[in-house]
Formats: sequence, C-alpha cells, structure tokens
Amino acid sequence: MRIGFLQLRPKFGAVKQNVRKAVSLLSRVSDAVIVLPELFNTGYLFRNADELASLAEKVPGGYTTSEMKKVAKCNNLHIIFGIAQKAKKKYFNSAAYVSPKGKVSVYQKVHLFDREKLFFTRGKSLKIISIGEAKFGIFICFDWSFPEVARVLMLQGAQVLCHPSNLILPYGQDAMKMRCIENGVFAITANRIGTERRGTMSLTFTGGSQIVDPRGEVLVSAGDRSESLKVVEIDIERANDKNITSNNNIVEDRVPVLYSCIARKKIR
Amino acid sequence: MRIGFLQLRPKFGAVKQNVRKAVSLLSRVSDAVIVLPELFNTGYLFRNADELASLAEKVPGGYTTSEMKKVAKCNNLHIIFGIAQKAKKKYFNSAAYVSPKGKVSVYQKVHLFDREKLFFTRGKSLKIISIGEAKFGIFICFDWSFPEVARVLMLQGAQVLCHPSNLILPYGQDAMKMRCIENGVFAITANRIGTERRGTMSLTFTGGSQIVDPRGEVLVSAGDRSESLKVVEIDIERANDKNITSNNNIVEDRVPVLYSCIARKKIR
Repeated sequence: MRIGFLQLRPKFGAVKQNVRKAVSLLSRVSDAVIVLPELFNTGYLFRNADELASLAEKVPGGYTTSEMKKVAKCNNLHIIFGIAQKAKKKYFNSAAYVSPKGKVSVYQKVHLFDREKLFFTRGKSLKIISIGEAKFGIFICFDWSFPEVARVLMLQGAQVLCHPSNLILPYGQDAMKMRCIENGVFAITANRIGTERRGTMSLTFTGGSQIVDPRGEVLVSAGDRSESLKVVEIDIERANDKNITSNNNIVEDRVPVLYSCIARKKIR
Repeated sequence: MRIGFLQLRPKFGAVKQNVRKAVSLLSRVSDAVIVLPELFNTGYLFRNADELASLAEKVPGGYTTSEMKKVAKCNNLHIIFGIAQKAKKKYFNSAAYVSPKGKVSVYQKVHLFDREKLFFTRGKSLKIISIGEAKFGIFICFDWSFPEVARVLMLQGAQVLCHPSNLILPYGQDAMKMRCIENGVFAITANRIGTERRGTMSLTFTGGSQIVDPRGEVLVSAGDRSESLKVVEIDIERANDKNITSNNNIVEDRVPVLYSCIARKKIR
C-alpha cells in the first residue's frame, strides 16, 4: 500500500489558488492514500466568524471537495484534506475523505485549539474510514495531545493514523512517534508551512510533515521550508502485529478495569 | 519541594552490598523525595522462580525496607525504591515508599515486561501517595508504555510521576517527556546502568535518569556511565495549572464520552 503527505503553504483566503496548487501537485502521483494539511484551502487565522462563514464550504457539494474528487478519480487517489465545513448553520474544522469512486466522508475535529473555539463547533464522534481491507483513523492537529484519541482509534481497528495539521507548537511531530509506538500503528502527519499575518495576529507553522512506522521510526519527512509531496510503500500488516516481546502484546496487556476513570465524566 | 533520583549499578544478588551503596549515597542528601531504580537491591535477571524466592523480601519487615526507613528518618527523606516483594506465597515487582516517620506503602507493578511474567504476579491497582499536600503517582518501568497509567494517575490528582525503572529499550525517557506534556505533570525516572549477564542471558540498561517538568523540559538528567544522585527544587503548583492556551485546558477539554472503549474489557 502506498501512503503519502502533501505539505503545503496556503495563502489565506485564496481558496481557488490553494486548491489549484494542491491539484497540480497531486496530479503527479497515483495509486496512493494522500493526506493534506488542516484547513489547506482557506488558511488558518480567521479574524472573526463572518470571515469563516464566507470561506467555509459544504462537504460534499462545495468547490474544494468537487475538485478533490476529480483528481482522486483521475489518478486513483484516496485523499484526506482539512477543510472549513459549513453544515446547516454550524461550522466545523473538518477532514474530508474522497475516494477514487467518489465516496465522501467527514471527520469533524473534536479537540479544538485556542481561537478555533470562537468560531467552530466541536465534532461529536471519532472517525475510521475503510480503504479496501485497511482501516485509517483520522484526527486533526491538536487532537494528538489527547492520548485517548489515537488509543480509541487503534482499539477500533485503525492501522494508520491520518493527521492533517497546522502545527505551531514543537511537540506534535515527536508526539506522533510516541502514538505510533504505544499503539503499534503507522501515522501520516501532513503539516503546513509559512507564516500567516492577519491584523495583529501572526502564526508560523512548523512543517516537518512525516510518515512514522509502528516502531516510531520516521520513514519519510519534509523540512519546514518547501511544499513537498512524499509517498512511501508500507506493509500495512505490520500494524496488525501488536507483539512487542515474546511475552508482551500492546492490546492484550492492557488492564481496562484500572482505566475506568478515563471514560468517566466526573472523575472525583 | 525538592525531588531527585538515585541512579545505580546494582550487582545481581548482592542485596546487602547494593543496599549499603544506596544508603551511603542517600546519606549525602536530606529534605527531599528521592526515587531509586526498579529492583535496585536484587538486580533484574532472575534465572528462575527459586532464585526470585530466595531474594524477595517482605514489605515492610524485610532487610531492605528497614534500612531505607532508617536513612529516611535520619535525613528526612521520602524514598521510593524498586524491590522484589514477597507477600504470602506470591511475588511482586514492587515500588515501596518509606516516609521519615516510618510510614510504608507499596505499588505492585501492573504491566509486567517480558520474562517478569514468568515469576511475578501482576498488581491489581494503581497507586498515589500523599506527601504533605502533594500527590505522587507511582509506576514502574514498562508501565510507561500504557498511556492510560499516567492519565489515570493525573486524573486522580498526581502532580509528580515517580518511575523506578530498569529501562533497556530506547523509548522510555522520551516517552516520559510526552507523558508530562500530555498530563501537565512532573516525572522522576530513576533508571539503572550496567550490563547483567546471567547464564546465556544478557541485558544492558540505558541509564539516562531524568526529572521532567510539565512542559516536557528536562530539569536534570544523568548519563549512562555512572551512579548519580541528583536533586532539584520544583514549584509543585506548576502541575496544578492545566491551561495550555487561554482557551485550552488539559483536563476540561477531554471528551470522556468518546473514550469509553478504553475502559471496556471487550472492545468489539
């Protein structure tokens, strides 16, 4: 199975330009699962809710998803991309999935970061998509910070974590190596690069997109300076082997009866 | 509050020699919480159950715990140390805690590593000890690999993770930085050094004992070549601040209703 990431430098608000650039780069690859950054088509730093409303799109039905479906079909790609989603009167920081056959599904970010809470509605469920026999768990950027997310996805069968990101803190990439080790899965982090200046706000994104294997080894990565499309061949069966010594298994060694407070609304 | 670790190079089976060495080093420090490695008094590589039975001790009551109580009292130390514990006809890979006033309590390792499963009984509960107003969560070595352990201890109030270890894999130290970041707590990893050769078996331990702060910064660490006692002053209040942006809180942002399968015995 071929999996990859497309690291991009979106221009805020220039949706058509951002999508055209992504489609142009995606046209160079075929027969693969490719992850794009969070909010790749709009940029990240919305100044207010009106600005978000003017840029958000329906999924499916909107311009970005339609263009992604076209290139997915032409090049036999499975594409997972970050998008500001309009759904009725709500707005979600979402990751959409499009298949070569035109199937579309959506994950709505559960753990919103900082100012995202001002404009976006929190998602209400985690998401696994099936591609053939393989299962891909999707989460977005700051979701990495909650070990429960990757754990739940793995326990529900995910073999690869897809992680569209706009990382600005220095922790995310290392954290994903740990998520792979502790869960015995692959992970694709697609981060963006560049600095966004919007009024008095400014953010610089850390790039460093990467694909990590179930032992925490980085199979391929990008720097923080250029847009970059990278694809690797993986043996997805490696994510099914949860044995880490002849006596230890990542899943079977768990003692769920001791973990109950993790799932409890009131801890104490 | 002063917290520290004592990194040691135990000699297999030489309990009195190992304990005397530890006491001698501990005598140089006072008014602190100090963590020692896993199984610091016996060494690690038991060849069989009989060998373990001949070296395991009662807690309290055994030689090692009695000696630790003496130095704890003399130097106003709170000491957490790894020990092979005999309890009725069972044997546990335990971490004992002794206070300056002679209080003793015990954590029995829950997630046993590799050949430990051949001789040791698995513990049945996690453990938090109170030192004044501060709360210390205890786990041993390979317990790091289960993100649930640190998470549960934090949710139950632990501000510092005490981590007696015999680490041989290269992941543990980096993992503990992540456990600190994702839980907003301090961690003390006390690892051992040296190579143990027992019959055809051989293991080399990685040292690198460290104290990490709630942002994942290493406050102090040891190499892998020498025995080492290090103590730092911490502001334990830092572990109570779970805000990581003006809009994000490590505890309040959790969505337990989505994490239920972590606590379920049967996942699917």
